[in-house]
Amino acid sequence: MSIFSSGQIWAAVDWGADSYKAFLIKKGNLVDTKAGEQGVLKVEDQAFEVTLRQLIDSWLSAHGEFPIILSGLVGAREGWVEAPYIHTPCSSVEIQGGVVTVPTNQLKNVFIVPGILHTGEDYPEVLRGEEVSIIGAIKEQALSDGWILRPGEHSKLVRVAEGGVSLLSTYITGELFKLLDQYSSLSRHSGIEQKTSSIDFMTGVRTALKSGCLSKVLFSSSTRRLVSQIEAEHVSSYLSGLLIGHEFRDLKSMGLDDIVVVGSGQLMELYQLAFDELSIKTTLLDSDRAYLSGAQLILESLGVDS
Amino acid sequence: MSIFSSGQIWAAVDWGADSYKAFLIKKGNLVDTKAGEQGVLKVEDQAFEVTLRQLIDSWLSAHGEFPIILSGLVGAREGWVEAPYIHTPCSSVEIQGGVVTVPTNQLKNVFIVPGILHTGEDYPEVLRGEEVSIIGAIKEQALSDGWILRPGEHSKLVRVAEGGVSLLSTYITGELFKLLDQYSSLSRHSGIEQKTSSIDFMTGVRTALKSGCLSKVLFSSSTRRLVSQIEAEHVSSYLSGLLIGHEFRDLKSMGLDDIVVVGSGQLMELYQLAFDELSIKTTLLDSDRAYLSGAQLILESLGVDS
Repeated sequence: MSIFSSGQIWAAVDWGADSYKAFLIKKGNLVDTKAGEQGVLKVEDQAFEVTLRQLIDSWLSAHGEFPIILSGLVGAREGWVEAPYIHTPCSSVEIQGGVVTVPTNQLKNVFIVPGILHTGEDYPEVLRGEEVSIIGAIKEQALSDGWILRPGEHSKLVRVAEGGVSLLSTYITGELFKLLDQYSSLSRHSGIEQKTSSIDFMTGVRTALKSGCLSKVLFSSSTRRLVSQIEAEHVSSYLSGLLIGHEFRDLKSMGLDDIVVVGSGQLMELYQLAFDELSIKTTLLDSDRAYLSGAQLILESLGVDS
Repeated sequence: MSIFSSGQIWAAVDWGADSYKAFLIKKGNLVDTKAGEQGVLKVEDQAFEVTLRQLIDSWLSAHGEFPIILSGLVGAREGWVEAPYIHTPCSSVEIQGGVVTVPTNQLKNVFIVPGILHTGEDYPEVLRGEEVSIIGAIKEQALSDGWILRPGEHSKLVRVAEGGVSLLSTYITGELFKLLDQYSSLSRHSGIEQKTSSIDFMTGVRTALKSGCLSKVLFSSSTRRLVSQIEAEHVSSYLSGLLIGHEFRDLKSMGLDDIVVVGSGQLMELYQLAFDELSIKTTLLDSDRAYLSGAQLILESLGVDS
């Protein structure tokens, strides 16, 4: 029985280190969202239940009890209840099987989704939070074999084989961009409001594609401005292109030529430009849709009444 | 006539964006140094002469007038007087020829050394400040052909051909380390005082040497700690190894097997470990010695009485 068509009410909360995003589903429709800075690292004295009730207070007042699916750092060692990592290769069913029921006082039916651990040849790889969107994307695309990329602060690349997760990489592309754009010498002399330039973004992508060494190529943000090859107001666009180009150089080195991208917003337009440059075919899937599709799949597997 | 043997008094100031380091030479000996945070970007209303006098006030009181060689951002567009870049390929003599005499009110014989601009195939490269040490290293090592590396916030690699500078690269390795170690998610959960571990440093070097993608490999700082492959107190050492390993991967790709390294302090011991791993033969030259040797060469070329 599909919960989307059942008239039930349920919620899903992507509860990360520094922020949260919550979704309320009623009769199969997304009826409300909430988002804020109340991340897991800001919850003191393990007051997770109280905090969660505050975050979705108006929903509880209006609807009473309903099942809640939690994902993200909330299920890590430093979170509410640890949901141990599921090891690759793993299917959606195995991930669903690792869902942990949270012991609560006033709330009922609170569940935490486990992360995924990949023991690589050189070092381990993990994701926690993104597994919900990944499950959703596999379902939405009826994907048996292929690649999924979920860009963000930490961009996650997942290899799908036989409908499950077989390989996993993390690119800290978004976080590097924020650090360099806010704090580094590459941008500090500009002090000029930045405008998006897809031309300079693509110059950055192409420059990075030619060089394997990010710590070398990054300095070109300074030198190109110095000799007026880029305007001061376009340094951020160029820097973004360098970082995404560096990530894409690695994607291309794996030989992938077809990818499902889970994302939304203006950044996806820039990603699309870069994928076109590399002649990689992309299917774009809205990140909220992928997340809710995955959360629904998990809820169905739990067989909970609400 | 060598100024080191002449009994003259002179000073050299490496005056960068965020800090300065000043050297006083008397009868060929280094007799005093001063250093502080009064970088070029903190000088307001072009008050460079007043600021310089304050920085070396006690030296002026004790010795009266003496020639002063300035290098670094002080000679850039945003500095005191612009000393235009000398283009590669360039000899030490050509760099000396680009020295600019600063118009002053109370001080006499103040000179600014020009930077070097390399018009690369893909993007330009520059250095400003490091040229003094480079000239000094070429002289000290009687180097006709070879490579010089000057590690730092921005690590500079110089190809020396026919005794001059023919090629130039900048790795922002040190700056990336500071940003990631201070502000990133890779280190924020530790909150633990860091201890130097050469073993974890070398694990970082070897991990980076295997991977061309820095934004991917950096995340292993988090995951190795998560699965206890490195201790929380050694995350900074591992991170440093990843960044230096990434830089060295690029050095190795150029086929260089013999290098002059201009530097000092504990970091040089770690660099030496990484060079040994790559079987690159190194000659270590103290950075102050290289700087003063270069500054002396410049002063001699100016033919100034002091």
